[in-house]
Amino acid sequence: MLIMKRTEIKLLFAESVEQLIGSDVVVKGWVRTKRGNKNVAFIALNDGSTINNIQVVVDLANFDEGLLRRVTTGACICVEGQLVKSQGAGQSVEIQAKNIVLYGEADPDSYPLQKKGHSMEFLREIGHLRPRTNTFGAVCRIRHHMAYAIHTFFHERGFFYFHTPLITASDCEGAGEMFQVTTLDMKNPPRLEDGSIDYSQDFFGKQTALTVSGQLEGELGATALGKIYTFGPTFRAENSNTPRHLAEFWMIEPEMAFYDIDDLTALEEEFIKYCVTWALDHCQDDLQFLNNMIDKGLLERLKSVVSTDFVRLPYTEGIRILEEAVKNGHKFEFPVYWGVDLASEHERYLVEEHFKKPVIMIDYPKEIKAFYMKQNDDGKTVQGTDVLFPQIGEIIGGSVREENYDKLMNSITERNIPMKDMWWYLDTRRYGTCPHAGFGLGFERLMLFVTGMANIRDVIPFPRTPKTAEF
Amino acid sequence: MLIMKRTEIKLLFAESVEQLIGSDVVVKGWVRTKRGNKNVAFIALNDGSTINNIQVVVDLANFDEGLLRRVTTGACICVEGQLVKSQGAGQSVEIQAKNIVLYGEADPDSYPLQKKGHSMEFLREIGHLRPRTNTFGAVCRIRHHMAYAIHTFFHERGFFYFHTPLITASDCEGAGEMFQVTTLDMKNPPRLEDGSIDYSQDFFGKQTALTVSGQLEGELGATALGKIYTFGPTFRAENSNTPRHLAEFWMIEPEMAFYDIDDLTALEEEFIKYCVTWALDHCQDDLQFLNNMIDKGLLERLKSVVSTDFVRLPYTEGIRILEEAVKNGHKFEFPVYWGVDLASEHERYLVEEHFKKPVIMIDYPKEIKAFYMKQNDDGKTVQGTDVLFPQIGEIIGGSVREENYDKLMNSITERNIPMKDMWWYLDTRRYGTCPHAGFGLGFERLMLFVTGMANIRDVIPFPRTPKTAEF
Repeated sequence: MLIMKRTEIKLLFAESVEQLIGSDVVVKGWVRTKRGNKNVAFIALNDGSTINNIQVVVDLANFDEGLLRRVTTGACICVEGQLVKSQGAGQSVEIQAKNIVLYGEADPDSYPLQKKGHSMEFLREIGHLRPRTNTFGAVCRIRHHMAYAIHTFFHERGFFYFHTPLITASDCEGAGEMFQVTTLDMKNPPRLEDGSIDYSQDFFGKQTALTVSGQLEGELGATALGKIYTFGPTFRAENSNTPRHLAEFWMIEPEMAFYDIDDLTALEEEFIKYCVTWALDHCQDDLQFLNNMIDKGLLERLKSVVSTDFVRLPYTEGIRILEEAVKNGHKFEFPVYWGVDLASEHERYLVEEHFKKPVIMIDYPKEIKAFYMKQNDDGKTVQGTDVLFPQIGEIIGGSVREENYDKLMNSITERNIPMKDMWWYLDTRRYGTCPHAGFGLGFERLMLFVTGMANIRDVIPFPRTPKTAEF
Repeated sequence: MLIMKRTEIKLLFAESVEQLIGSDVVVKGWVRTKRGNKNVAFIALNDGSTINNIQVVVDLANFDEGLLRRVTTGACICVEGQLVKSQGAGQSVEIQAKNIVLYGEADPDSYPLQKKGHSMEFLREIGHLRPRTNTFGAVCRIRHHMAYAIHTFFHERGFFYFHTPLITASDCEGAGEMFQVTTLDMKNPPRLEDGSIDYSQDFFGKQTALTVSGQLEGELGATALGKIYTFGPTFRAENSNTPRHLAEFWMIEPEMAFYDIDDLTALEEEFIKYCVTWALDHCQDDLQFLNNMIDKGLLERLKSVVSTDFVRLPYTEGIRILEEAVKNGHKFEFPVYWGVDLASEHERYLVEEHFKKPVIMIDYPKEIKAFYMKQNDDGKTVQGTDVLFPQIGEIIGGSVREENYDKLMNSITERNIPMKDMWWYLDTRRYGTCPHAGFGLGFERLMLFVTGMANIRDVIPFPRTPKTAEF
């Protein structure tokens, strides 16, 4: 029996299964449930290739009772049997077992995934096993598909995947706190005469930290290769225990030479729609499960995003709409005025109540945006863009980059940004500078939107948050 | 003129260029060279989309002399002009310039990429600009293609991309030194009564480091989802200043439930051949350049690998062949005997002299391999595999994993591996354990093979090595 080639269970749920009916197949996987009566047992078997379980029908008269007793939830088995049309509702085929090999038991007294309906909190504590559940299996498969969709989107458009460094001696716009990286003996580090740490003895000969963004290095790539994107881990040592923050997360940061603001917002819209369309096309079963169990509005929201034109909304116009709303009696917790950094309630009002569709806001006051954004001629605004989505708010932040050396230096000086480690970034403006633009997307933000999951800890296999670095 | 859509230069080297001949086009890019006489200037323009430069022909009578003087090597320009068949040899089309916009100058007195023929060492010092050179542009484009080939290979075969954590509180087999990750104040860290560091006050509430491998977490994915792969940064704080070591590099680590040793070696061979074939199919111009300029044997070596069956060689048989060679007078620096960890000279003898093709060595003595490898019934060997390649040696290391809990625990005990942080790994053998296998590939090792570059610092955009973390 072990000589027969294994069939992945997802193939038994494909249309091509018709041609297998009547033949013998071998499947391998983990028992989700076993039920039955004194004559027959029904085993629901899952191998991770799909959310669907194949039903294995076991005629008890033909099998050793002792063996079958050990086939419990979580056990791993190999089954050889005939594939037949299913008698029961809810599945089209099932397997009449001829042989069963038990690879690994799962002691019912200690296996933690015994019964259904565990809380998300409990499942985080057993993060090493939760990919075996329906919900996290679905999330993991969708996560793969979203990553592959992203690589394919950029590849098809002539972008080059560009690996920016994780360990860095520069700080990108001082965004958030950074994790220090060191090989020094913390207990007794080498010190200079004044008592400060002698980082010249550290591994890299200077103080280093984990990157908070690959954008600046990405611009080096774009000003040589034309169009690049990064897709890698990024780190923030913020002590934020919220459902929307991770200390370690994955970011996608494309940078494009010769793109202006219209090219940029067009790419942002095309990109998100491509990812969501990919999910709808390739992850039907998993999305249907999440729609049923996690978020009843999920599929409708995903379909709505791909069929709607996103609004382009200048910040100044957005403020006018919000002020109008206040005048008409709408109550916001935070004040609305030109220059304010919009709160989540403001963004949601614009997206969910006023326009009822995704909004790309542009031309923000320069004071509330980063130093590298291209300055408009009005002297007040910069060509920043935020893509605002229903439910989750900002999903993409981007901008045209200031390519003029003098303007960039003014902005850096105004903000007192330490430039000693950024000579290489300024060289892009010194030598052959060009108009260019880029954006950043937190991969887990996209995952929250596409899966309908509520907590960012539940869309990454092994979340890192304050006081938590298990597995 | 700026209203016209830009054409990427690679399209001017595609077969479809025929239909553009005679029309006006707009190209944007960086000047590689400018030469000419008192009537006409020839500008070689590159936009990073291809290694090929488009020749722009400038009739000096029609252009401002002052403007043209500023169009020097490294400057960024936009050119509108008519695409015509080229008069000169070496290119099929060229552009007769009608308009030129200068985006950014590059002062000839200070721009470091003035003349050709810089040393690799010098180019590492200007790592922020080196993607603008032919060699590093080619390497970056090939790097993208290899990454996309890898994702596509696994996607097409039903693997799921699985993000294992970068920051970890566990050590994987103690492989190499680790970088510590901390937010504690190094100058004055909190201490326990005995003077040791109080890591409970660190960000994660315990001591953490950067991962040296995602394998163990990858096994968690495979024992739930069936087939997964990782592709992410990995870190080693080894003080190795060699052309083959990086402190930060990218690894690919697939793990497959229900794979045995034959499935594993078949996948390893198929995987490498797929990547090399992809390069030959998609990176012709860049490979041809590297073959001409860097390594005259490159293309021949790549073609040879994809057309050859890899040898499967049990370690014991390999030792026999090496002992035979010694007997016949071949001199090795290091001794040959059963149980020895083969040196590079031994591997090269087998690959380059004896078999003259790639070798997958299997069934190694258990003492020289990691604790998690599946033990053979002989009590002496384990189901480890190394894929040995001409020129670069080991390119892949893999194994069937020991799935038996007791055997795994014995191996762990024999090696005194501290298990307190690995309860979650052992749970895979405790609950529903299954036969499974996996391998690891250093992405930069693959890049060395595919590009023919000699130093690993030159196949990653921003290398991290002892005392170096620039950009």
